[in-house]
Amino acid sequence: MSKIVEPRTLPGFMELLPQDQILFNEMVDTIRSVYEEYGFLPLDTPTIELSEVLLAKAGGETEKQIYRFMKGDNDLSLRFDLTVPLARYVAGHYNDLVFPFKRYQISKVFRGERPQKGRFREFYQCDIDVIGLNELDLIYDAEIPSVIYHVFQNLKLGKFTIRINNRKVLNGFFDSLQLLDQATDILRVIDKIEKVGEEETRKELQDMDIQEKDIDAIFKFLNIEGTNEEKITALKNLSIQNEMFQTGVEELETVFKGLRDLAVPEEYVRLDLTIARGLDYYTGTVFETVLDDYPRLGSICSGGRYDNLASYYTEEKLPGVGISIGLTRLFSQLKEAEIIASSKKTISDILIVPMDKENSAYTLEVATYFRSNGMKTDVYYQEKGMKQKMKYADRLGIPYVVVIGADEVASNRVTLKDMQTGSQELLTKEEVLERLTK
Amino acid sequence: MSKIVEPRTLPGFMELLPQDQILFNEMVDTIRSVYEEYGFLPLDTPTIELSEVLLAKAGGETEKQIYRFMKGDNDLSLRFDLTVPLARYVAGHYNDLVFPFKRYQISKVFRGERPQKGRFREFYQCDIDVIGLNELDLIYDAEIPSVIYHVFQNLKLGKFTIRINNRKVLNGFFDSLQLLDQATDILRVIDKIEKVGEEETRKELQDMDIQEKDIDAIFKFLNIEGTNEEKITALKNLSIQNEMFQTGVEELETVFKGLRDLAVPEEYVRLDLTIARGLDYYTGTVFETVLDDYPRLGSICSGGRYDNLASYYTEEKLPGVGISIGLTRLFSQLKEAEIIASSKKTISDILIVPMDKENSAYTLEVATYFRSNGMKTDVYYQEKGMKQKMKYADRLGIPYVVVIGADEVASNRVTLKDMQTGSQELLTKEEVLERLTK
Repeated sequence: MSKIVEPRTLPGFMELLPQDQILFNEMVDTIRSVYEEYGFLPLDTPTIELSEVLLAKAGGETEKQIYRFMKGDNDLSLRFDLTVPLARYVAGHYNDLVFPFKRYQISKVFRGERPQKGRFREFYQCDIDVIGLNELDLIYDAEIPSVIYHVFQNLKLGKFTIRINNRKVLNGFFDSLQLLDQATDILRVIDKIEKVGEEETRKELQDMDIQEKDIDAIFKFLNIEGTNEEKITALKNLSIQNEMFQTGVEELETVFKGLRDLAVPEEYVRLDLTIARGLDYYTGTVFETVLDDYPRLGSICSGGRYDNLASYYTEEKLPGVGISIGLTRLFSQLKEAEIIASSKKTISDILIVPMDKENSAYTLEVATYFRSNGMKTDVYYQEKGMKQKMKYADRLGIPYVVVIGADEVASNRVTLKDMQTGSQELLTKEEVLERLTK
Repeated sequence: MSKIVEPRTLPGFMELLPQDQILFNEMVDTIRSVYEEYGFLPLDTPTIELSEVLLAKAGGETEKQIYRFMKGDNDLSLRFDLTVPLARYVAGHYNDLVFPFKRYQISKVFRGERPQKGRFREFYQCDIDVIGLNELDLIYDAEIPSVIYHVFQNLKLGKFTIRINNRKVLNGFFDSLQLLDQATDILRVIDKIEKVGEEETRKELQDMDIQEKDIDAIFKFLNIEGTNEEKITALKNLSIQNEMFQTGVEELETVFKGLRDLAVPEEYVRLDLTIARGLDYYTGTVFETVLDDYPRLGSICSGGRYDNLASYYTEEKLPGVGISIGLTRLFSQLKEAEIIASSKKTISDILIVPMDKENSAYTLEVATYFRSNGMKTDVYYQEKGMKQKMKYADRLGIPYVVVIGADEVASNRVTLKDMQTGSQELLTKEEVLERLTK
């Protein structure tokens, strides 16, 4: 009984103080509300799944990171992303779902990585995907970045750019150079070009035995400049006789036209031929998102189009397009870079402070009045000095305090204190409500 | 590659179809919004904790149910409730917290029980607690049930009753019969009186070698009838010379007065001397909540007052009072009893259906207009027949469809279809907005 265990958490597991948690939840609410504005349906899959099911596709690095364990006879794993559970869900329920199936999921996922700065072992992902049955119109590839545009507009993190590319353009281009076999490896090298620079990238390509003339062609291709429209025209003018390449360029053209139709301003989306996304399963459009003023944060929201979501679980063909925000990491980076701050965050709009027990009936009447009129209202019930009561409001960041003493009860009024200016006024509760909610 | 894994989930793990998920999320939103209305602060603790920390207090049945496993050198466990993480959190952060610390947490917890009907291995708990440093005013014992009153009012599940008792009254009463040593066992028997009936309870008490006159006294005590005030008067009139008993009765009096001051109607709260709550750590007020028309659901929301939250983690004394809603189980029961239904649940307020690709620029313009005016707007982009497009709206339960064809584009109007009545009208997008948002 007397042994005290140190109340600690594990490294790599975020746990926030209340004001940070309020800020974090506001971000979740913003994301969710934009997702719903576009008609995405909520999904909440189990945290624990059968390893046999969850790891049907996994292997290599992913598998090592899994939290996997036995319980009784069951070999269990914690989900490590939201895409595999989505695939399992759609495959298992496709008779009950309406296609295209547009779903969002905002949930924690688990990866037992070696903990390091900015890496989390338990973190929130905020995903949207649109899944078609057999087919999925290309315009959904424009809807996804338009959702993301609205999300980051509403999150107010400053100017950002959604970078868009198409894997068919890349693959088709490499095919035209007869480098298709090496395309995945080349793409992996190109994917890092922003981090390592052009020279290092060129060296890596040389090490892969790619001929100098092909490397030149690759860089000519990667360095196409201009507006999105100009880039698309330039791609066409390359006159590459490759069907996949041409399909990819047409897809890009449709996606950028869709984005214009969806009123996403030109300066927020950029055709970026260097974007490849490491994952093998993207087959068309790919997305990354960067904060213009904080490029070192890297991509804060990535995704793309895939041909088949759930080949491990069903023979139905389920093409889709989706994107994911890694919110825990993003939040931690934004806090550290002081792009967001929690100092003014509060749940309660107002705190009611009775002078003493005698005033408690009137206090609770006023509290009920405020609450029933939509004001978040806290009451400080402890018998302490006025100074300590005010400190409670101050430390919680509650902007207004209502003080109730014998005079207030007698006059059927309350004293409203503005915590920022320190000014006080004797008002009816109706006047307080009007003043604070207008 | 060709091996298809059956896309199944584990028994005891709830996973909902979209319309049920919408309904579930609405309940979560309602609960959260009432919790915040009373100034409770959000908390989100890690799902995975060190076993040494999380299980500092656990033992017996609880320990067997834990999902516990090794990852590298770490002995880890999934949280099995939200109270232990709260204790660990408050003990670890009490210098950074403001007391009384009012927090809510709505999160999944994990218990590897033998799965059976209505039991879940992964389920949501929706908890509120108020934690004091050294002391906590009794009036918080009235605030907690008043929050619960508003939660269940807003959930609209029909008439309910919050049953309130006080462990000091029970313990003091048994002390007066010199049965204090057996109090915990007697309380455990009494706790089941509603399920097993008076006769069975009497027999169990006889089996415990309790004298007939004491059993009579116990039943006389348990059968005190009347309004809450009459019961409190009757308790006083028992003239039991026991300090703990008298303190308990005074506490009940204060709590019921507080509930009146908080405008909780008398018929929603009942002093019920049979409520004991099995858990040993409640020391004062205890709560249970039942739906009047569905008593077989049992208590859907329970909690109480405890003297010390975190004795395993700190030497600070942290008295508190709290309550928990086991939402996954409640949702499942409510669905089964058809108290709630998801059939009309939808995310989108409206679906926009372009007749063909030519109309897509105008379609997306209209979609953006609706969204920027707060309407949740889905667009059906697939090239399908009109019948299939309408079926999409119908199956998702979207109440209105806007159809856009060449005529609509030419006249700068849209055709609004009411999915319930089938009526159609040609309107401007502004007229649609006005009609659907008023």
